[in-house]
Amino acid sequence: MERTDIAIIGTGPGGISAAITSKIRKKNIILYGENKVSDKVTKAHKILNYPGLPAISGKDLSAKLKEHLDQLEIPIDDKRVTMVYAMGDYFTLQLSDGSMQEATCVILSTGMVQEKPLPGEDEFLGRGVSYCVTCDAMFYQDKTAAVIGYNHEAEEEADFLAELADTVYYIPMYKEEPVLKDKIKVIREKPESVFGDMQIEGLKTDEQTIPLDGVFLLRDAIAPGKLVPGLEMDGNHVKVNLKMETNLPGLYACGDITGTPYQYIKAAGQGNVAALSAVGRLDALKRKAAADNE
Amino acid sequence: MERTDIAIIGTGPGGISAAITSKIRKKNIILYGENKVSDKVTKAHKILNYPGLPAISGKDLSAKLKEHLDQLEIPIDDKRVTMVYAMGDYFTLQLSDGSMQEATCVILSTGMVQEKPLPGEDEFLGRGVSYCVTCDAMFYQDKTAAVIGYNHEAEEEADFLAELADTVYYIPMYKEEPVLKDKIKVIREKPESVFGDMQIEGLKTDEQTIPLDGVFLLRDAIAPGKLVPGLEMDGNHVKVNLKMETNLPGLYACGDITGTPYQYIKAAGQGNVAALSAVGRLDALKRKAAADNE
Repeated sequence: MERTDIAIIGTGPGGISAAITSKIRKKNIILYGENKVSDKVTKAHKILNYPGLPAISGKDLSAKLKEHLDQLEIPIDDKRVTMVYAMGDYFTLQLSDGSMQEATCVILSTGMVQEKPLPGEDEFLGRGVSYCVTCDAMFYQDKTAAVIGYNHEAEEEADFLAELADTVYYIPMYKEEPVLKDKIKVIREKPESVFGDMQIEGLKTDEQTIPLDGVFLLRDAIAPGKLVPGLEMDGNHVKVNLKMETNLPGLYACGDITGTPYQYIKAAGQGNVAALSAVGRLDALKRKAAADNE
Repeated sequence: MERTDIAIIGTGPGGISAAITSKIRKKNIILYGENKVSDKVTKAHKILNYPGLPAISGKDLSAKLKEHLDQLEIPIDDKRVTMVYAMGDYFTLQLSDGSMQEATCVILSTGMVQEKPLPGEDEFLGRGVSYCVTCDAMFYQDKTAAVIGYNHEAEEEADFLAELADTVYYIPMYKEEPVLKDKIKVIREKPESVFGDMQIEGLKTDEQTIPLDGVFLLRDAIAPGKLVPGLEMDGNHVKVNLKMETNLPGLYACGDITGTPYQYIKAAGQGNVAALSAVGRLDALKRKAAADNE
């Protein structure tokens, strides 16, 4: 595995802006996101205050951002990042296909997780609650697990889980009908809490209690404090300074996760600053390495 | 004079973004600047990292920003702001035509003053050194003064000064030939310092010493620390937090004056944040006033 200079997580205006500026500054980057511009942008009705693009629809802004990426030959990697570990002077990213990627700098632009955590979720994370089927499916060989899916991509992961687990429940958090393997049981109920003792023992919904060995929560975004162990938060938001630096050297954040206002042009501006801070760190590390070699 | 909600100073991407968002939020605003988008943008060769507008020329970005202002019916007021006084819960702006304007909030987006202050300039500010002919010309009735002009707009002010002063020198800091009243003496020399005792007594150039009663320095922008008495600086930059608040309640800053990186998209993002912070303050003041009236 080759270590990349900058891994950027998120394809809203913050992540895309960070990718554009990083690429122009000739850094090796990987931009992780859904294989298109963030849904939140695309679905926006009309954006009135993105200077230079008056009264643009979310769809058109999305297309323009994608065009900008294409012109600079920046691909979007559709693997989900399920964990980011600070290793000292680099980071290791755990990806949804079970692989790892190293990066010298990381820029978080994952947007706000709108959903509140499920009661019990934080408590049982790593003890039956997981955000990554590919990473943890092997623990559920011949066991019973549920997948709470927030988008269609989750269906594929549920299918994979069903190859190993004995029983799989799928709880779609969207209206459309999921397309799943026959053995998976679809439940249209509202998850209310996970419970257990040392490990989780089940899930309560608004209609019943389901005994389980594991629950996979597959949201559009993972709350940043859970994605990056050790990351300092300020309430629900990542704590940053004006350079978009977090408490972890080499890790930057931009966009909605840094706090209100939740605005596209703010995210784009912060993405630019985060990228240039990362570029500054990369250049400083390079100079230091050169000096150490003398 | 009607007090405006928000006075925005500067027509780079920061000021324009602030104006757009303030206007969309239905506030009364005045946008002060040259009667066009900032020259610094217009003259930029090619901007590669303004997301959504790939590889755009400064001229085209400028046109797009102007079009956005036009669509929202935001005029640009070409009076220069020469002083901003914090009055408690509002601000008084001194304008280059000698008039005053009150504003509940002020957003500074004046860009960086590239020139270093002239030696003696800070020392003699208000004691012979001035940034505003219209405001101070009356002190030079039958006296001798020099205008150091950084752009063609300064010529008009020199002409006005010449109606009152006995002798006026004009030192253009640009290549083109100035068009001035006959009585004004154009000097093509490099100003090196102003000197004096209690008041200034003259100007030293690289070629001679000129006895003077006053010197007008008419730059593209006034350093923010001089424009706003009491404004806390961080070196050459205005000290702001993530909300773009300065140390003066109701006064916000955005763009290059808040620090590096000097980037168009960063300025646009910060302008948006500054505007929404101002909107928040206006709404809070309104609620407070309503509660006080109950």
